[in-house]
Amino acid sequence: MDQKEVYHLLEQVKSGEVSIDQAILDLKEAPYQDIGYAKIDTHRGLRQGIPEVIYGAGKTADQIIGIVKEMTAHHQKHIMITRVSPEKAVHIGDKVPMIYHKLARFGQIGEMPEKSGKGRILVVTGGTSDLPVSEEAALTAEMLGNTVDRLYDVGVSGLHRLLDHLDSIMNARVIVAAAGMEGALASVVGGLADCPVIAVPTSVGYGASFGGLSALLSMLNSCASGVSVVNIDNGFGAGYLASMINHI
Amino acid sequence: MDQKEVYHLLEQVKSGEVSIDQAILDLKEAPYQDIGYAKIDTHRGLRQGIPEVIYGAGKTADQIIGIVKEMTAHHQKHIMITRVSPEKAVHIGDKVPMIYHKLARFGQIGEMPEKSGKGRILVVTGGTSDLPVSEEAALTAEMLGNTVDRLYDVGVSGLHRLLDHLDSIMNARVIVAAAGMEGALASVVGGLADCPVIAVPTSVGYGASFGGLSALLSMLNSCASGVSVVNIDNGFGAGYLASMINHI
Amino acid sequence: MDQKEVYHLLEQVKSGEVSIDQAILDLKEAPYQDIGYAKIDTHRGLRQGIPEVIYGAGKTADQIIGIVKEMTAHHQKHIMITRVSPEKAVHIGDKVPMIYHKLARFGQIGEMPEKSGKGRILVVTGGTSDLPVSEEAALTAEMLGNTVDRLYDVGVSGLHRLLDHLDSIMNARVIVAAAGMEGALASVVGGLADCPVIAVPTSVGYGASFGGLSALLSMLNSCASGVSVVNIDNGFGAGYLASMINHI
Amino acid sequence: MDQKEVYHLLEQVKSGEVSIDQAILDLKEAPYQDIGYAKIDTHRGLRQGIPEVIYGAGKTADQIIGIVKEMTAHHQKHIMITRVSPEKAVHIGDKVPMIYHKLARFGQIGEMPEKSGKGRILVVTGGTSDLPVSEEAALTAEMLGNTVDRLYDVGVSGLHRLLDHLDSIMNARVIVAAAGMEGALASVVGGLADCPVIAVPTSVGYGASFGGLSALLSMLNSCASGVSVVNIDNGFGAGYLASMINHI
Amino acid sequence: MDQKEVYHLLEQVKSGEVSIDQAILDLKEAPYQDIGYAKIDTHRGLRQGIPEVIYGAGKTADQIIGIVKEMTAHHQKHIMITRVSPEKAVHIGDKVPMIYHKLARFGQIGEMPEKSGKGRILVVTGGTSDLPVSEEAALTAEMLGNTVDRLYDVGVSGLHRLLDHLDSIMNARVIVAAAGMEGALASVVGGLADCPVIAVPTSVGYGASFGGLSALLSMLNSCASGVSVVNIDNGFGAGYLASMINHI
Amino acid sequence: MDQKEVYHLLEQVKSGEVSIDQAILDLKEAPYQDIGYAKIDTHRGLRQGIPEVIYGAGKTADQIIGIVKEMTAHHQKHIMITRVSPEKAVHIGDKVPMIYHKLARFGQIGEMPEKSGKGRILVVTGGTSDLPVSEEAALTAEMLGNTVDRLYDVGVSGLHRLLDHLDSIMNARVIVAAAGMEGALASVVGGLADCPVIAVPTSVGYGASFGGLSALLSMLNSCASGVSVVNIDNGFGAGYLASMINHI
Amino acid sequence: MDQKEVYHLLEQVKSGEVSIDQAILDLKEAPYQDIGYAKIDTHRGLRQGIPEVIYGAGKTADQIIGIVKEMTAHHQKHIMITRVSPEKAVHIGDKVPMIYHKLARFGQIGEMPEKSGKGRILVVTGGTSDLPVSEEAALTAEMLGNTVDRLYDVGVSGLHRLLDHLDSIMNARVIVAAAGMEGALASVVGGLADCPVIAVPTSVGYGASFGGLSALLSMLNSCASGVSVVNIDNGFGAGYLASMINHI
Amino acid sequence: MDQKEVYHLLEQVKSGEVSIDQAILDLKEAPYQDIGYAKIDTHRGLRQGIPEVIYGAGKTADQIIGIVKEMTAHHQKHIMITRVSPEKAVHIGDKVPMIYHKLARFGQIGEMPEKSGKGRILVVTGGTSDLPVSEEAALTAEMLGNTVDRLYDVGVSGLHRLLDHLDSIMNARVIVAAAGMEGALASVVGGLADCPVIAVPTSVGYGASFGGLSALLSMLNSCASGVSVVNIDNGFGAGYLASMINHI
Repeated sequence: MDQKEVYHLLEQVKSGEVSIDQAILDLKEAPYQDIGYAKIDTHRGLRQGIPEVIYGAGKTADQIIGIVKEMTAHHQKHIMITRVSPEKAVHIGDKVPMIYHKLARFGQIGEMPEKSGKGRILVVTGGTSDLPVSEEAALTAEMLGNTVDRLYDVGVSGLHRLLDHLDSIMNARVIVAAAGMEGALASVVGGLADCPVIAVPTSVGYGASFGGLSALLSMLNSCASGVSVVNIDNGFGAGYLASMINHI
Repeated sequence: MDQKEVYHLLEQVKSGEVSIDQAILDLKEAPYQDIGYAKIDTHRGLRQGIPEVIYGAGKTADQIIGIVKEMTAHHQKHIMITRVSPEKAVHIGDKVPMIYHKLARFGQIGEMPEKSGKGRILVVTGGTSDLPVSEEAALTAEMLGNTVDRLYDVGVSGLHRLLDHLDSIMNARVIVAAAGMEGALASVVGGLADCPVIAVPTSVGYGASFGGLSALLSMLNSCASGVSVVNIDNGFGAGYLASMINHI
Repeated sequence: MDQKEVYHLLEQVKSGEVSIDQAILDLKEAPYQDIGYAKIDTHRGLRQGIPEVIYGAGKTADQIIGIVKEMTAHHQKHIMITRVSPEKAVHIGDKVPMIYHKLARFGQIGEMPEKSGKGRILVVTGGTSDLPVSEEAALTAEMLGNTVDRLYDVGVSGLHRLLDHLDSIMNARVIVAAAGMEGALASVVGGLADCPVIAVPTSVGYGASFGGLSALLSMLNSCASGVSVVNIDNGFGAGYLASMINHI
Repeated sequence: MDQKEVYHLLEQVKSGEVSIDQAILDLKEAPYQDIGYAKIDTHRGLRQGIPEVIYGAGKTADQIIGIVKEMTAHHQKHIMITRVSPEKAVHIGDKVPMIYHKLARFGQIGEMPEKSGKGRILVVTGGTSDLPVSEEAALTAEMLGNTVDRLYDVGVSGLHRLLDHLDSIMNARVIVAAAGMEGALASVVGGLADCPVIAVPTSVGYGASFGGLSALLSMLNSCASGVSVVNIDNGFGAGYLASMINHI
Repeated sequence: MDQKEVYHLLEQVKSGEVSIDQAILDLKEAPYQDIGYAKIDTHRGLRQGIPEVIYGAGKTADQIIGIVKEMTAHHQKHIMITRVSPEKAVHIGDKVPMIYHKLARFGQIGEMPEKSGKGRILVVTGGTSDLPVSEEAALTAEMLGNTVDRLYDVGVSGLHRLLDHLDSIMNARVIVAAAGMEGALASVVGGLADCPVIAVPTSVGYGASFGGLSALLSMLNSCASGVSVVNIDNGFGAGYLASMINHI
Repeated sequence: MDQKEVYHLLEQVKSGEVSIDQAILDLKEAPYQDIGYAKIDTHRGLRQGIPEVIYGAGKTADQIIGIVKEMTAHHQKHIMITRVSPEKAVHIGDKVPMIYHKLARFGQIGEMPEKSGKGRILVVTGGTSDLPVSEEAALTAEMLGNTVDRLYDVGVSGLHRLLDHLDSIMNARVIVAAAGMEGALASVVGGLADCPVIAVPTSVGYGASFGGLSALLSMLNSCASGVSVVNIDNGFGAGYLASMINHI
Repeated sequence: MDQKEVYHLLEQVKSGEVSIDQAILDLKEAPYQDIGYAKIDTHRGLRQGIPEVIYGAGKTADQIIGIVKEMTAHHQKHIMITRVSPEKAVHIGDKVPMIYHKLARFGQIGEMPEKSGKGRILVVTGGTSDLPVSEEAALTAEMLGNTVDRLYDVGVSGLHRLLDHLDSIMNARVIVAAAGMEGALASVVGGLADCPVIAVPTSVGYGASFGGLSALLSMLNSCASGVSVVNIDNGFGAGYLASMINHI
Repeated sequence: MDQKEVYHLLEQVKSGEVSIDQAILDLKEAPYQDIGYAKIDTHRGLRQGIPEVIYGAGKTADQIIGIVKEMTAHHQKHIMITRVSPEKAVHIGDKVPMIYHKLARFGQIGEMPEKSGKGRILVVTGGTSDLPVSEEAALTAEMLGNTVDRLYDVGVSGLHRLLDHLDSIMNARVIVAAAGMEGALASVVGGLADCPVIAVPTSVGYGASFGGLSALLSMLNSCASGVSVVNIDNGFGAGYLASMINHI
């Protein structure tokens, strides 16, 4: 409600066209009305610049199929579906042309888009059990138009494996580091690299790993500058953020 | 010795201005300047391309003065000192020309460098008590050559204050969001912005805020993509990462 | 025996329609209907003025059927049964006329009562996975005589969806806000509304959501005044309290 | 500018006493009174219909004095200042006419307003050490126009003290129950009352009370319907919510 | 071999019925009956004066049968087996004459012994879902020679149900109070009784009950003197301790 | 309200002497009215059989002096005051004849009463830093008429010190075991003794002792039967309960 | 990169053979290049002196078979596979000659090696349910060439069982103490022994054992010197470290 | 009580010299009497082979002086006193010849003993703020006769500093790794070394370091074999264990 509209409203109050009670109601809502959200809504692709993503965990196969069909009907070419169980994947694959990446539990609709990112994204993991999360990150980044290098099973307890790949670390524009038992990985990689490192704690592990909490705390306490952390197991979020930085 | 200085040294080697032996000596000296209580990693300027930072919390005023003098003797022009108590600041200010930012407990040696960042960094906070942390982030980013906008006291419980500044949010290249009681701030800002948001939980608050833990968890669970989190109260880390992204 | 029924009984005593001895017998019987495994507190209708509720989680289908039959034998018209699994629902439905709301795992005996609440109750949720809890709240409130508006899937990371419904928020007499990943929802709604907001953390989510604990802490730290919190997943409690406030 | 004042302003517009331009100016000024360190949300009186409150914990005496003067310059008659230490209170009292309630660390500007609440608010506490929090709740409610009954030191371990005051419990329209060691208080009061009970965990206690966490959990698990919880030590929030319910 | 049996053995030594060599052999054998997977501490009957108990949770049906047969071969008349699943119970019941209490998952070998306790033990519970734990406590106490009164489903949120049984509370020599959602029960009972109250948190409940932790904390913070706490779900420990106190 | 009174009330309703509204109010309170609490209140000494205790932590010296004078005016001979700081003790000692036990921060008014307990109470501690808590327990028990043996600094890491005192352990009727770093003490003592053991975690210790939490958990998990736990540092509670058991 | 190589590089810079940019890149990697990792990698057996181990938890039977075949093809004679489920064991046993220790879920390829350790390793456990973890430790140590004594089911609540085996404790060169409910075991054994004690918390137990956390904390707080702790359930790690110490 | 003594006891029972009750008491204590602890007590130095240590934290300067004098009177030449504040150190130094190491808060009586350890102990730390703990470890080890190398301020975020000292790591017989913010240090060192690594979490740090808990969890989850953990800040325990291993 800009100044003109308030002026008009008050004229109407003065003339009796609008009751005082109605005017009070209108004024109460004013602070939130002038930001054109309808436009933003229809331009969401513009505002955030990404293909669509469906969070598959809480949805049935039929719901996912419905959403995919709706999206493709609106000419969406690239859709990614995260956290799709193998069982659901079979059902979905029957109805829509989905490429299913089993390890990452990740569904891909449409081909990988052209590379639009400015540099390379490196995804590093501590152990084989961290692969589902790191693959989710890698596929997400690829679906968003990035070139992704994978450097898997290079935990800090066997440091030379990591140091053998210094080139990959030095050449990356953004790094995603996923680890469950070895939260230390983020510190070490962060200390070696001079680019942003996105740490993803994973919930694998046993004993005092507490479902990823220990890795999370370890990563947050990293003394290496340039490291930030996303939620436990949030491979998608890491890949998304990496892509965002790589497109700046 | 930062990257520019190494470049210059190599140019001098190439042109014959500096002998190879002298250059080797300079490079060898670079990584460490051992002055007893800590190895100063002056190689780091090269490896990571940034001015020096001194973490002031665990050091005495005399130790800080010693490190600053050592650094300036090595032609370091810009030094920032974090977590300097007002008492220490007085002592340090007697010996070296430090500008002291009291609210952020932040010491600045040398003028702010020229702006080298590619866009603007926005620092947003939920309440006045989050200011020390957000100012640490803002000053860090400025010391690293960034233009910083400040948007303070715009908590989500009075949403219109935040919405009044949509332009600042839309124009930022990176956003730092610091909050203690209102972890929600990161979610809301992350939903409005289309750039990376670095969330900093702060330890202010009472009751079930648990020294920043609640804000930390709230920020990690943010459903908005593009949000990552640094350690509680780590304004420096947030400013540093923001600068890194802004220089990519 | 609710307050109206006691009033009616006393009127009958006054008018002589019912003898004092019979009235005493009725009142004495009221507090407990001991049927072995639990004392049914039918006095509670009087003391707290509401229809009966059965907490279904720890009870077998046969126990629930027994309690329902006992209650209906005592002329209880409206009974709600919470946390009924679909399997139990089939068994119960065979023996007593229960309407089963599958999403909310909620059993309804008798029709919805007439609307007796003074205003409207709004139930808001952050995501589709919060629906079971929010529906439990909504159905509970409806069973207690309230008009309920539902505003689902309006998380703060897409703020415009929420702001599009400012009218609903402004018109509500009480709001229930249920969210698991987006504890921020309670803060934002609390900041927009000028009526009591009852926040319900839900246990959905992954990673550092810790079974609803993160949402709980986030909601407790809400800076918006007028917000209070009930137990994780306690949709019934929220609906009950909302109704209580709406009937004051 | 509260709702009554806006109503009055619009009446003046209607009658021609105040020009439309002047009214627009008044309304535009209302939302923010920027005085440097914080944006005072004076629009909030309108939006939420209450006098102003200043959260004193993170502010200096001078900042508080400045805000109070600004507010009174804008004709705010009733101001409450929470969490004011006795030291600050002396300084503030020198400059502005503040009544200081020491136990609650609560500053009051202006007389208590006329009673506008529809019923009585009862504030119950478990022990003498819970008094600061319960008094903050009681004074907040009184500043917001409510009649408040106090029922102090009636812990559940001496149940008869509580039961001796059944009348107060039965007559209340809203109850605030504050306790640190005896989280059980909320359950018991909630079971006795048939009105909303707002539970406030307090941080007093020792051993496994963990700064109010135990009381918080105990209150959240209360089986009594109608009970909700605010943040640990948040007496203001409880009093505010109680007033809100009492004015519905 | 319990204290009575040792007494009898020594009487036989004194009278010459049993030779000293034989007595030494009996006593030497007593402490351990090694049967492979566990050393059965039959000396313990002497040292602590009670019948045998087998913790069934980590043992197979066959192991339990073996231990029971070994014990009965050594003239143990009363054996209790805790935490026996219904499946195991069927297998065990085929081989040894066990009475199985399904609700408490409790196996009883031999009849209940004569009452030897000096007073009555009262077992109180908050809700029907606490029954397995409270029954384990009650059966344990009965197997140890105590008269046990049960007062079930008398939670504090419906206080009158508890107050209706003041006599039972006043007459008890020891009280066991088991509750999961209503940790408050221990406080209230402890305030009413003038005998030791043993509180048992149970792991039933949902949301912020955290597997009994909330009840545990609530019980530890009880302000009522005379209350102590055993481990979550440890009905056996509570019954055992109650019996110990009742036999002093 | 017994049957006669309800009969009378209904007669009054019938006759019009009492309005229906008033009758409903009277009936609502009925369940809680028939337990004669006023009597219980004045007979508290009778019901719980102990001298008076003042919890000194949250009270000023003057408040304590006032309470003591009031109590002695009512002929109370034995009063104990817990958690009295040395500073307060000086003030109190000026006004009333208090014996102050500095280590336990415990004030004693009147001589120790005659021994009325049936057996001996043993207080065991792990280290010298646990003495304040164990002395509070010991003095409390002595003030309540018990003979108390002290066995201090007998931690399990030097087991022979404990085993040297087997006689004391075997002769006790109740044992209090207080420990901060050595929660194991309760297990070991519980395994040796055949009497109730009351474990008191203390908050002394460093590192992962977490203010007594580790000791608390260790004690709760004790496999020795007959062990129960009171709140961290609650020496008074332990001494009180020990006395209660020793007087049964 | 040693001094000679840097000299050569600078010569190349001077001569123009190497560009300045390339030289900067080479210099950036220098600090990590001079440690001969390739050698370490191929000599890993030498550096750490142990047979191979496969962590079986996150791998399929086929993956394990593949790794085993690869290793044996390289003449590895002794392989241990930890955390192999019985199902996987059947599949693996079909393809490679594995001895499967069911209780420890431990696969053994090749015979036990000759004893190379200098002394005896003692493995002590608190209860039968700790056996899987302690057997994993014992078998690991045996596979690494150690003589292992087992002392099982000797919890501190029946202290004489432990004391009966003082000789074993006194003769050990290293002790592994595994316990879930009885974290006290590590303290007691540590107090008796004069050799290093490696404590392993196990996740067995119920109630407040919290998946081994309570045992972990109890062990960390052990006052006995010479005790250190490994991760919950990490029998392999304990056996490995015990062997390492026994081979020093 | 060996077989002969039991035989004698039973003879006395038979002859009437000893009553049956007395015999039962004697037999009850038997399991614990035959281990000659008095001898062990006087031979404690023998059993554990170390000089004396005084834990200074909970003791007054006078108490410490008294203990030192007592010990030296018994010809103890080497005494170490841990956790001595500078204030106490002044008082103690006035009375006994103590060398005070301020950084480690460590008092030394007598000269360092001759080196008796078989190899070298390396103490590694992550940052300058970890020095007090690592120095406590180093001095403890030196007082116990070990050669100690110190490698300070070599955190993993600047990995080359650590790698520059590979020789020290490779040459150590035992390593102590102390870190607060960089729990990763233990993993990295453990992966490089082939000797036991004792990790000490320190309580320095801020934010989500939670008083050393994060470092503790990170260290426990270390994937490097050969790493075990002692309590937070327990430098003494680490030094003691390192010495024990170095003397095996």
